[in-house]
Amino acid sequence: MQGQPPRRLALLLEYEGTAYGGSQYQKNARTIQDSLERALSSLTSEPIRVALAGRTDAGVHAKGQVASFATGSRHAVSTFVQALNALLPGDIAVRAAAEVPLAFDPRRYARSRWYRYTLHLGPTRPALLRNFVWHIGRPLDLDAMSRAAAALAGEHDFAAFTRPSEAARRPARRTVTVARLSRRRDLVLFDIEANAFLMQMVRRITAALVAVGTGKLSPEEFEALLREARPGAAGQTASPCGLCLMKVRYESRLFDDETNENL
Amino acid sequence: MQGQPPRRLALLLEYEGTAYGGSQYQKNARTIQDSLERALSSLTSEPIRVALAGRTDAGVHAKGQVASFATGSRHAVSTFVQALNALLPGDIAVRAAAEVPLAFDPRRYARSRWYRYTLHLGPTRPALLRNFVWHIGRPLDLDAMSRAAAALAGEHDFAAFTRPSEAARRPARRTVTVARLSRRRDLVLFDIEANAFLMQMVRRITAALVAVGTGKLSPEEFEALLREARPGAAGQTASPCGLCLMKVRYESRLFDDETNENL
Repeated sequence: MQGQPPRRLALLLEYEGTAYGGSQYQKNARTIQDSLERALSSLTSEPIRVALAGRTDAGVHAKGQVASFATGSRHAVSTFVQALNALLPGDIAVRAAAEVPLAFDPRRYARSRWYRYTLHLGPTRPALLRNFVWHIGRPLDLDAMSRAAAALAGEHDFAAFTRPSEAARRPARRTVTVARLSRRRDLVLFDIEANAFLMQMVRRITAALVAVGTGKLSPEEFEALLREARPGAAGQTASPCGLCLMKVRYESRLFDDETNENL
Repeated sequence: MQGQPPRRLALLLEYEGTAYGGSQYQKNARTIQDSLERALSSLTSEPIRVALAGRTDAGVHAKGQVASFATGSRHAVSTFVQALNALLPGDIAVRAAAEVPLAFDPRRYARSRWYRYTLHLGPTRPALLRNFVWHIGRPLDLDAMSRAAAALAGEHDFAAFTRPSEAARRPARRTVTVARLSRRRDLVLFDIEANAFLMQMVRRITAALVAVGTGKLSPEEFEALLREARPGAAGQTASPCGLCLMKVRYESRLFDDETNENL
């Protein structure tokens, strides 16, 4: 493969994060990044480094993570999809692949990320969905939660909804374009889309919304948390297993057959 | 607890069968039955034997399996639910419990069972649903499959759709009340309800329906298989992981809050 002009590919990834220490490299845990790099290196016989659009914590899932890498390999794009799905462990799958410009950076080029958090209200803990929901086990006041969630839309300083250390490290202004709650039988889905997210931002917002739903926090107090933007003020963090990165949007569509089927 | 008059309880169970050798006792595999008996014996300090309404194979799941057992323990019914959910492994959950007549037998008293088989048509293998679907990976002719499935309704000899040894062992006449295909984005759900099922019957019917969907078998050939009732004639067996026991119905409702939420 040496001497081939490099090309850059993007991959659309689905994974269950339960068995992983998160998306990015870690010293003492298996991660999505190193599983993907191992499969790619085995396929291309090159050392491959991948970049990911979104950082997901240990236990967090993805339906639409985007990865990108440079390679000298001449394999057809469809070969990458088929071979990687044969090489990767069962809990990571490649849904699509595409050739992208050499300068493409999946994180910097992303215009927005859509995350979904799933709450389970049923009285008993679930067995089939146990790795994919936060089991609340009681009814929630969805009207109050929706009023609180409405305050999230627009550009705000989200310092209250991240680690204090993260808020100190970089500006916390983000623009939320969607913040919507919906009900599916015993499940409540919280969909949030923003240009970018701070560390633990969705999980801290979700925990605060659940506090609104159980009456521990009023929608007005939720709004005050957001407005006052005191770093780390929303102290609770929802369980990672309820969270899923659904889609990363770019200026133009990266993948031909990209759908979010089976949501 | 000695000397207490015995009582009988029924449990509504949900489980992921991936890690189990099936529902019933086996020498060399963990099963749903022995996991449940261990938790019950630990809770009641009695040796407990459970009976299950339906036999599920290794890898097959349940949303609505029914178990029953006799005990001298005086624990409240709600205590059984809470304590068992604390004692059982995460992939088995008790959704409800109820006091039932001492003579109750969850298998003999059942009027019908509803099973659902889930097919995944998407072009690439799924990661999140990998243990819950059979990945077909191509479109299926749902019209042809629905025509074939319609032939299943009513009382028939289902000898073609079981193991030859099973068909030789006992009568194979069963009454199917529901046999319906539906589509949810990339998923096809096959719902089948009958008074009772033969071993591997749903999985063999499903495999034959998929053969109809891919054009390998015509709906007429499917009907002929059923009509001729030659033991084991439908030789293919669909993967266990796509199958789920959804509900067992009785003359009267066993559990107060029984719903099949999140289907």
